[in-house]
Amino acid sequence: MTDRIARLREQLEEPLLVTNPTNVAYLVGFNSSNTVLLVEEERVRLFTDFRYIQAARAVAGVEVVQTRRAVLGELAETLSGRIACESSHLTYDLFQTLERGGLDLVPRSAVVERLRAVKDETELATIRRACAITDRVFERLAAEVPFIGRTERDVSWDLTRLFHEEGGEGLAFESIVGAGPTGSRPHARAGDRTIGVGELVVIDAGCTIDGYASDCTRTFATGPIDGEAAAAYGVVRAAHAAALGAIRAGLPGLEADAVARRVVDDSPFAGMFGHGLGHGLGLDVHELPRMSTETSDVLEPGNVVTVEPGVYLDGRFGIRIEDDVVVTRDGIENLTGLGKDLVEVG
Amino acid sequence: MTDRIARLREQLEEPLLVTNPTNVAYLVGFNSSNTVLLVEEERVRLFTDFRYIQAARAVAGVEVVQTRRAVLGELAETLSGRIACESSHLTYDLFQTLERGGLDLVPRSAVVERLRAVKDETELATIRRACAITDRVFERLAAEVPFIGRTERDVSWDLTRLFHEEGGEGLAFESIVGAGPTGSRPHARAGDRTIGVGELVVIDAGCTIDGYASDCTRTFATGPIDGEAAAAYGVVRAAHAAALGAIRAGLPGLEADAVARRVVDDSPFAGMFGHGLGHGLGLDVHELPRMSTETSDVLEPGNVVTVEPGVYLDGRFGIRIEDDVVVTRDGIENLTGLGKDLVEVG
Repeated sequence: MTDRIARLREQLEEPLLVTNPTNVAYLVGFNSSNTVLLVEEERVRLFTDFRYIQAARAVAGVEVVQTRRAVLGELAETLSGRIACESSHLTYDLFQTLERGGLDLVPRSAVVERLRAVKDETELATIRRACAITDRVFERLAAEVPFIGRTERDVSWDLTRLFHEEGGEGLAFESIVGAGPTGSRPHARAGDRTIGVGELVVIDAGCTIDGYASDCTRTFATGPIDGEAAAAYGVVRAAHAAALGAIRAGLPGLEADAVARRVVDDSPFAGMFGHGLGHGLGLDVHELPRMSTETSDVLEPGNVVTVEPGVYLDGRFGIRIEDDVVVTRDGIENLTGLGKDLVEVG
Repeated sequence: MTDRIARLREQLEEPLLVTNPTNVAYLVGFNSSNTVLLVEEERVRLFTDFRYIQAARAVAGVEVVQTRRAVLGELAETLSGRIACESSHLTYDLFQTLERGGLDLVPRSAVVERLRAVKDETELATIRRACAITDRVFERLAAEVPFIGRTERDVSWDLTRLFHEEGGEGLAFESIVGAGPTGSRPHARAGDRTIGVGELVVIDAGCTIDGYASDCTRTFATGPIDGEAAAAYGVVRAAHAAALGAIRAGLPGLEADAVARRVVDDSPFAGMFGHGLGHGLGLDVHELPRMSTETSDVLEPGNVVTVEPGVYLDGRFGIRIEDDVVVTRDGIENLTGLGKDLVEVG
């Protein structure tokens, strides 16, 4: 952890007030929804309220200060001088509260988030564990869980149960189970629709280990599918393979996205890959770097990103394949061990 | 929903850009993590990206506009004029993005959140269902689930399973299972500690129904407890009863809190009730109004609040009792049907 504070200090010209709780967790290992960290050159102060104060006192290398519940309200009264703030997280109102308190605030965007984008060995080991659990859950889902005649919600519960049985600490996000037309909405929730025969079912799920997320998607078929669906699956698979082959440190996220998008846009499914290729993965399910048509991020060694092209036929079906990979100097380490053949489930 | 838009318009002097996704869900029934609503006098526009556009098109009474992933980046280029924003939710950076785009932004705090604090009959019916499920889960937990010799995490999983079996759609938050010293941290997570005999165990858990949360706490005993713990339980119970007797529309949250706090502070456990009495409950687990030593909120008919005094003996044990109640003109409707005697579990 002290190493992370040291890396952060290299980025700072003035003290930084860390208000994003996930960034506090990253920097000093303290988990609380109501905490603020002030990183100065010579010391680190951790502010929190009564409910978390015992846990805070166990944190090494910080001075712990108990505040009232409105932590920033109290800091507005007690801090002074020139201090940087996390302006991509701090709300406009709290920024004003601090300024009215006399602080000279310097807005800084995503300073800690950029550190978090490059994972250290401990973090990689943790994400590998989360991905290995996720592999087993998807394998068991395909082998053991009935789909046909049950609702998307039923299958979603089976995912919850399997993640628990395989050692996941919790779900990384609400699992997506999108059968048939539901799957054509990339972020549809599992609903009350009963899964029929010969449908494509998009399963997008992950777990957390020590706060770190996995995020995996496979598309299953409940029996034989028609030629168009099979063709679409092949296109997504080819787009996925192209992206895996292209990703390496130094590649702009925009170009990684373009490699996969070109495969889709050169097919009969042009224009149907309506989201970005992938996103960083760590303490948040969506973090830096991004691979999309809108990003200026460039991939670095130690990034962990999802690779998840898809094709969506409005109101009919969706297909997405998603692996989690570590970016290396020469290419990738793929943390997802699942195959990519279309698997039939019953 | 149109009624909610009408109530909102009464509060506005200029169009409001709603950027809090929970507020969008409340106003028009649309669930997405990447959406913005613009409420004007004559029309309502709903902005979202490709991933959610199909779902958005099913929303009644709004004009749907598809944007790129960075919704506010696009709106900064296309909107103009004087528009209010949700300054207690919008980040400083996004505020600047919109202003640089030429918008004349008026910061407004918690406008929709204050509407949400007063529930309509549909919302109350939904929260009643979530609370009834929660009652059954706590009853079954005490009757069926072994505590002694198992970890807090094991019991937490049983809560997850029971909520599913009783019809909860998901957990409202990560369940708290705080045995012995863990319970003395009001917001401790369930951990790997094995639960022993003669310990107090704080269970704080809830589920969601149609997005609305329940939030209930009971403290159980794994066998006979010592006199001090029993005395502390009695004090918390008395503080809880005093608060339930005092709460009614028109009472300031500060005074509601004081009623319960006085009971604790007049006991040998003075100063050990280290958090507020309760908080509003709805689409968020923590919303308006607040009952605490720091609030200026005043209770209104239709508020749904938690009532949750506690006593925490540092490193030894914690006790908390929490009901969910509707505030009425004359008092309360208690949505939690569980008893408050100390229940022994095995």
